[in-house]
Amino acid sequence: MLGLIMDRPMLISSLIDFAAEYHGGTEIVTHNVEGGLHRYGYADAQAEAKRLANALGELGVGFGDTVGTLAWNTRRHFEIYYAVSGIGAICHTINPRLYVEQLAYIVNHASDRVLFVEAGFVPLLDSFAAEIADTVRAIVVLCDEANLPESEHFDLISYDALVAAHDPVFDWPSFDERTASSLCYTSGTTGNPKGVLYSHRGNILHSYASIGPDCMNISARDTVMPVVPMFHANAWGIPYAATMAGAKLALPGPHLDGENVQALITGEGVTMTAAVPTIWLMLLDYLKRSGKNIRPLTNVVIGGSAVPRSMIETFKRDYGATVRHAWGMTEMSPLGTVNTPLAKHENLDDGAWLDLAEKQGRPIFGVDMRIVGEDGGELARDGVAFGDLQVRGYWVANAYHRQDESDAHTGDGWFSTGDVATLDGDGYMRITDRTKDVIKSGGEWISSIDLENIAVDHPKVVEAAAISVAHPHWDERPLLIAVREEGAELEKSELLDWYEGKIARWWKPDDVVFVDELPHTATGKLLKTKLRDDFKDYILPTA
Amino acid sequence: MLGLIMDRPMLISSLIDFAAEYHGGTEIVTHNVEGGLHRYGYADAQAEAKRLANALGELGVGFGDTVGTLAWNTRRHFEIYYAVSGIGAICHTINPRLYVEQLAYIVNHASDRVLFVEAGFVPLLDSFAAEIADTVRAIVVLCDEANLPESEHFDLISYDALVAAHDPVFDWPSFDERTASSLCYTSGTTGNPKGVLYSHRGNILHSYASIGPDCMNISARDTVMPVVPMFHANAWGIPYAATMAGAKLALPGPHLDGENVQALITGEGVTMTAAVPTIWLMLLDYLKRSGKNIRPLTNVVIGGSAVPRSMIETFKRDYGATVRHAWGMTEMSPLGTVNTPLAKHENLDDGAWLDLAEKQGRPIFGVDMRIVGEDGGELARDGVAFGDLQVRGYWVANAYHRQDESDAHTGDGWFSTGDVATLDGDGYMRITDRTKDVIKSGGEWISSIDLENIAVDHPKVVEAAAISVAHPHWDERPLLIAVREEGAELEKSELLDWYEGKIARWWKPDDVVFVDELPHTATGKLLKTKLRDDFKDYILPTA
Repeated sequence: MLGLIMDRPMLISSLIDFAAEYHGGTEIVTHNVEGGLHRYGYADAQAEAKRLANALGELGVGFGDTVGTLAWNTRRHFEIYYAVSGIGAICHTINPRLYVEQLAYIVNHASDRVLFVEAGFVPLLDSFAAEIADTVRAIVVLCDEANLPESEHFDLISYDALVAAHDPVFDWPSFDERTASSLCYTSGTTGNPKGVLYSHRGNILHSYASIGPDCMNISARDTVMPVVPMFHANAWGIPYAATMAGAKLALPGPHLDGENVQALITGEGVTMTAAVPTIWLMLLDYLKRSGKNIRPLTNVVIGGSAVPRSMIETFKRDYGATVRHAWGMTEMSPLGTVNTPLAKHENLDDGAWLDLAEKQGRPIFGVDMRIVGEDGGELARDGVAFGDLQVRGYWVANAYHRQDESDAHTGDGWFSTGDVATLDGDGYMRITDRTKDVIKSGGEWISSIDLENIAVDHPKVVEAAAISVAHPHWDERPLLIAVREEGAELEKSELLDWYEGKIARWWKPDDVVFVDELPHTATGKLLKTKLRDDFKDYILPTA
Repeated sequence: MLGLIMDRPMLISSLIDFAAEYHGGTEIVTHNVEGGLHRYGYADAQAEAKRLANALGELGVGFGDTVGTLAWNTRRHFEIYYAVSGIGAICHTINPRLYVEQLAYIVNHASDRVLFVEAGFVPLLDSFAAEIADTVRAIVVLCDEANLPESEHFDLISYDALVAAHDPVFDWPSFDERTASSLCYTSGTTGNPKGVLYSHRGNILHSYASIGPDCMNISARDTVMPVVPMFHANAWGIPYAATMAGAKLALPGPHLDGENVQALITGEGVTMTAAVPTIWLMLLDYLKRSGKNIRPLTNVVIGGSAVPRSMIETFKRDYGATVRHAWGMTEMSPLGTVNTPLAKHENLDDGAWLDLAEKQGRPIFGVDMRIVGEDGGELARDGVAFGDLQVRGYWVANAYHRQDESDAHTGDGWFSTGDVATLDGDGYMRITDRTKDVIKSGGEWISSIDLENIAVDHPKVVEAAAISVAHPHWDERPLLIAVREEGAELEKSELLDWYEGKIARWWKPDDVVFVDELPHTATGKLLKTKLRDDFKDYILPTA
C-alpha cells in the first residue's frame, strides 16, 4: 500500500524558488572577474535565471540538451546553474585547467550545444575551435556588450545583453526527479575523462544532507564562500545547499589568492567556506605576512586532498576557526564523509583531537561505505585493516556518461572509489593510498602516501613520491623519488634513517632517487603513472 | 535523459541500519513505565527490532498489514517503529487519550491485525474488546513474562518473551519508497477521526529537513528528549531524525511531570527537547519551586499550540535555553515551520526578539505556504493580511486513509490547514485563528485567539473562549465566555474595558458571560463547537 503523501518531484528549480520567496533579499555577492563587487538578492537571481531560461529556448536549448560552462564562481555562473537545470537541460561544468585535447574531447562527448565562457577563456576556446565546430551552436561570453572580446572562429554573444533581452516571467517545467541535471568530467591519469551525470533527486538529497550540523552546517544566518570551483563537482554542491538554507553567498570569481580571499571573508562576514588545502596554504601565508584576521569565519571545510595536521592546528589556534576535514569524489556529488566529533570526543586533549581531525571523517546518512580486501571480502572496521574503499548511496553515480562499462562499479551495487582506506568502529575513515599507487610487498600493502608524508616532513625535502618497483622475491618494493630543498645537502642514507621508528621496518623504501622535479597532472596531482614508467627497470640495491 | 545516479529507495530501515553501523554504542535511554532507567545502544535496538521483525512474521503480519500501538515513549515503542515499518507493514500509533468509541473506530478503520499495548492500557482495551474482536488477532503487552497482566477478553503475549524467542538476523526487504510506513489519526471536534498515512519517502525527507540547523538542529553530539508522545504525529518525527543524526535518545516513558523531566534532562545530559507548552509549564513551575536547573539543555522546540511570550523569556533569561517555536500538523509529518532568526535579526533588542519569537516560524525547504482569502485569491505576505493557511510539500498528506473525499485538499494541490494566519515578507507565519473559529463581522475577520489571549492576560481570568454569535446587521459578532479566578470579583464592564487600546475598537466582544468551566476535547483543546451550540440563541446587547 502506498502512503498518502503528495507526490512532488525534487527539482533544482524548487531551490531557487524557495530562496527567492523566503530569502529574496539575502545577498549573493560576487567578486567580479574584472574587479569590484556585484551584489544582489536571491529574488534578483531567480529573475535573471528565468530570463536566461527564456533565452535558452531562443538558442534552441531544450529538455535533455547539454550546455557547457567555462566559468569562475560568479553570479552569472550561479544563474546558469539554475536556468539550465531548471528547464530540464544539463549544465556541463568544464574545468578550464584541463589539456586542450581533453577540453575538445569532453565538449564533443557531452554534445554541448551552447558554451558559456568567461571572456578570458575565449583564446583558449579558439585554440580548439575546429575540433568542436560540429557540436557547438553558440558561444555566450560572460560579460556585457561593451566588453565582448574578439574571436578568430566564433560569433560571440554577450551574456548580459542576451539575458536583458528576455522576460523574467517563466514557469519552470515539472518532470521526473531522476532527470539529469548536470554533468562533470573527472580526469584520471590515464584514458579519456569520464562524465558523471548528476540527477535532480541526487542533488536535492545531497543538499539536505550538506546543510546538516554534522556536515557543512549551513543556516540562513551564514555567509558561505565556496572557493572550490563551480566547475569542480558543483563546488561541492554549495550553490545548491546554500540556496536551500537561504544563506548569503560570497563568490570569489577568479580571485583566489590570500589577499583577495581574506578581504572577501572580512568584508562580507564569511562564516563558512570550503576549498582544497592549496587555497588555505596561500591564505595562511598571507595572514601571517599581513597580520590580518579572518573574523567572523569559524567553519572551514577542507577536502580534495589530505589536510596537513599543522593546517588544522593553525586555523584553530591562531584564527579561532574549526577545520572540517571532508572527503568525496566527483562520482559522489561529491560528499561522502565529513569529520565532526562525537559526544564521546568532548574532552579530547589537543593531540588526540588532532589525531581524530586528521581522518577524512565519517559518513553522513545517505552514504554507506565498506573496505574490501584483494579477495573481495569485507575487512574489519578496526582502524587498522586497510583495503579498497567502496561506497553506495543516494547521490553516488552508478555509471559513467555514454560509457557502456565501468570497472569501478561492482556487481552488487557499490562504487569502487580507487582509494585505499581504513574505517574505525565509528566509521571514521582514513585514506591511506590510491588503489593503483599502493605498494604490494609480499602479499601485504604499503601505503605510498604514508611514505611520502614522512619524507616531506624532513626539513630538506620539498616533495616526494613513493612508487612500487618490481622485486624478484617480494613482487614489489617501495622506491622513494624525492626533490631536495634548493641548495640543501641530503644523502640517501640520511633520508632512509629518517624513517626509523616512524613505520614498520619492512615499509622503509629500498632506495631513494633524488630528482629536480616531479611530474604532475593538469590539476596538480602527482603523475605516478609516468614515474612508474620511468623507473620500471630500476634495479633496487640488494639488502 | 535520466541522471546516472544509484536508484536506491529511501526506507526507514536504512535509518536504524545506519545508526547501528556508525553509532552502535550511542545510547537510547528509557525511563521505564514501572520506574528505573533502561539503557542500550543503537546496535542493540537494531538487533531487537530485527528479532521483532521475525516475530511479526510468525504473528502473520506481512507487507501492507497494519499494527497498532498504545504506548509511551520507550525503547520498546522505538523497536516497534523500526520493525513494523522495516518489513513494509504500517505502524499505527494510537492516542490512548481518545474516547473509547474513537479508539474502537480507528482500530477497526485501520484494520489493526496486532496491537502492542502498555500493561496499564489493558483495562482500557478490555472496555471495547467486543467492538474490535473481528479485527485484532493478537495483543502483545509491553512487559516481560512475569508482569503480564490479566485480561477479561484477550489472550495476552509478553513483548519481551516474544522478542527473545526470535533470531536477531533479518534482512530488511527493499520496496517502493512511497510505501505506507505509519499511520496516525487526527481527531477533530466533529466527525470521526481521520487517518494520515505516512510514507517512507516522506519520513526520510522530513528527517533530513528536521536535523538541519534552522529546524531542530540535531547532531551526533546531542542528547535528544522527545517529550511529545510517539503516539502523536510520530513524536514530531524525532525517533527518525535522531536516528539519522546518530544522537543519543532520552525517552521519558509516561513520566512527564516537572520533577521527572528535570531529572532526565540533567541526569542524561539532554541538549535538545520537544513538547507542547503544557509540559513546559509543569517543568518551569517545578524548577521555580525546587530551585533546580536544566543544564545542559539549550534547544527547546515547542509547538502544538501557541507559545506564551513569558515562556520564551523565562527559558532564555532564567535557564539559558532558546525556545524554537514550531508549527505543524499530523497531516504534515508534522513539521511546517520553525522559528529561527535570520542574519538581519542579529542585533534585535529583547522586545523585538520576543515579537519575532512569538511567531510560529518560517518554512523549511520542502514545505511551501500561502494564505488565501474567502474568494480563493492569494493574500499579501505583509504580516498584516490574514487568511486560510494552505501548504504543500514533500511530506504533506494528499488525502485521508480510506476516505474518498477530503474538503481540506484543494484542486490545485494544496492542503488547507484550517488555520488562519499571516505571512510576512520573510515567510514568518503567525497563526491568528482556526478557520472555523474566526469571527466574521461585516465581511471582516476577527481573531478569536487574539480576543482570548487578551482576556487570559487579565489577572482575574483563568480561561476564556471567544465565539461568534449571529448578529442581524454584522452577520456575526464576538461573545466572550470566561472563567474567573476562584473567589475573584470581576464585572463584565471591567473585562470589556481591558480591551481598550489593545485591539481595534470593532474587535471588542459585544458581551461577556462568566461560567464555572469551559468544555474541552479529549486532547485538551477548547471545544468551541459545544460553546457555539450552547450559545447559538444568545441575544447580544444592542450597542
